Amino acid sequence: MINNVITLANRPFGKPQLSNFKFITEPMPQAGKNEVLLQTLYVSVDPYLRGRMNDAKSYIPPFQLHQPIQSGIIAEVIESNHPGFTKGDFVSGGLEWKEYQTSNGTSLSKVDSKAAPLSAYLGALGMTGLTAYLGLTEIGQPKVGETIVVSGAAGAVGSIVGQIGKILGCRVVGIAGTDEKVELLKSRFGFDEAINYKTTKNMKNAISEACPDGVDIYFDNVGGDISDAVMANLNRFARVPVCGAISLYNTTEAQTGPRLQPILVTRSVLMRGFIVSEFAGKALEAVSQLTNWRNEGKLSYSETIVDGFNNIPAAFLDLFEGKNEGKMVVKI
Amino acid sequence: MINNVITLANRPFGKPQLSNFKFITEPMPQAGKNEVLLQTLYVSVDPYLRGRMNDAKSYIPPFQLHQPIQSGIIAEVIESNHPGFTKGDFVSGGLEWKEYQTSNGTSLSKVDSKAAPLSAYLGALGMTGLTAYLGLTEIGQPKVGETIVVSGAAGAVGSIVGQIGKILGCRVVGIAGTDEKVELLKSRFGFDEAINYKTTKNMKNAISEACPDGVDIYFDNVGGDISDAVMANLNRFARVPVCGAISLYNTTEAQTGPRLQPILVTRSVLMRGFIVSEFAGKALEAVSQLTNWRNEGKLSYSETIVDGFNNIPAAFLDLFEGKNEGKMVVKI
Repeated sequence: MINNVITLANRPFGKPQLSNFKFITEPMPQAGKNEVLLQTLYVSVDPYLRGRMNDAKSYIPPFQLHQPIQSGIIAEVIESNHPGFTKGDFVSGGLEWKEYQTSNGTSLSKVDSKAAPLSAYLGALGMTGLTAYLGLTEIGQPKVGETIVVSGAAGAVGSIVGQIGKILGCRVVGIAGTDEKVELLKSRFGFDEAINYKTTKNMKNAISEACPDGVDIYFDNVGGDISDAVMANLNRFARVPVCGAISLYNTTEAQTGPRLQPILVTRSVLMRGFIVSEFAGKALEAVSQLTNWRNEGKLSYSETIVDGFNNIPAAFLDLFEGKNEGKMVVKI
Repeated sequence: MINNVITLANRPFGKPQLSNFKFITEPMPQAGKNEVLLQTLYVSVDPYLRGRMNDAKSYIPPFQLHQPIQSGIIAEVIESNHPGFTKGDFVSGGLEWKEYQTSNGTSLSKVDSKAAPLSAYLGALGMTGLTAYLGLTEIGQPKVGETIVVSGAAGAVGSIVGQIGKILGCRVVGIAGTDEKVELLKSRFGFDEAINYKTTKNMKNAISEACPDGVDIYFDNVGGDISDAVMANLNRFARVPVCGAISLYNTTEAQTGPRLQPILVTRSVLMRGFIVSEFAGKALEAVSQLTNWRNEGKLSYSETIVDGFNNIPAAFLDLFEGKNEGKMVVKI
């Protein structure tokens, strides 16, 4: 029996391509002493992985050429020589793009398949939900009655940020790229307003109209022109959690835009980039809160589930075309 | 007897000119009931006043056309009908560009001419010192052994930021625009390194060489290209108090520069614009600390003192040419 593996064949220049990935095979791995053998069930594909494909200084080391790609994965323990795990356990962890792999258990968390669908532990109850919750609450510091604007609002993180904003008593305005997403934000996720940036000529004015009291929190998933338009509408003491910059990830030259310092100075604005792992100490509390909201029916989430190990790279590439609605997950 | 007054004649487009100001006269004011009559002794001119000359949304309302300009002023009480003030008291406050004016006492603080030279209450022991101290400590959160870069380092705020950084145990690197200023930063103010941005070709590399452990805090007084070069050298979890953007104040079109979001996201960087008044609750403690350091000989400051009421506008304009060394003050 052989094992299928996806490695980094070469580093992308600009937009990633299928040719950046290589499918290889290896002998079926065996669980050693104090190890488990895992079968991959769900693979998370996320925009931030694009950064790891570059050979650049970042918060996590770059992927190595000809080595397996890694991301968040839900797996089943199919063999255990580890005292902490039993055959049949489901686990979540940062694992490799392999159908089967071994682990010494470090960084694996058990997940409860009865409490929620397994894929939710990669999304609303996993890294995605934590990113939304901790970025919004720790950096955004929302107060009742404030106005939050979310870009990439129909994405995995954005749709959860908006719902948490509503739960916390804020006015929430989303920005997305299709009329269907705009409709979904309002009808399903409870956003007060939503704007299609692809069909709106003057985003600055559109945001101003949707936010009659100005913008107190801008949860930024995209960077670029959309962010410029939101920044121009910030209130004094506004907070800007900078979660991602998907519009800039595939650019091959440094992108320029309006300088932000004058807005920051004249309005005492805070901008703060973050990665969810820096708030690790608050993760348990956050997952518990997210789970409660989900069980109370207050937190909805959508998933785009792609089938098949061979489709992982294509699913990843589709993120940059906005083809996902909510969390993009590959079911093996 | 007549009183001389300087008003805003018209709003500048781009760099301010002498013609934006108008000298007028008015009858000598009289102290009414519960009022004091003040004689202006020292007038502070500051880059932030440029913003108030625009008719634009900011943290303080714009100056009104044909009305007196206001700034920080040290005055002597020459007549008092107010129970809280006595003839001969020296006071500091946000006052009008007039040789004489009345006040009901609101927002006036008494200053002690024996504890320090009066002009110091506009600078190191006044708004300038508070801006440096509170911006650096509240937003910058310096820790022993960290590296601080200060732009506009030979300016009023910058030279104090650098000295506080040294007192707090940090490595401090300054950026200034002449070799004389660079020398002064190292010899008088104790900066570890200083860089002349006008004669340095590759600022990004120069900063990298001056900061072998990267940059943990960037105290930004200038914005523009200099800031781009510093931002490229930020460490993970770096903090950027954005105090001013003098390089951008006189621009007539929105200036563009490299987008900052990728740096903020990949390095979990905090940028925060501020105005010293938002930390008003900590002002007393800060002045006390600054005064102690000054009395212990740990805090030096330089002043550029211009003589004469008629030279106030010219002194203000000279700020944008970098003609000041340290705090620019006009002695009446």
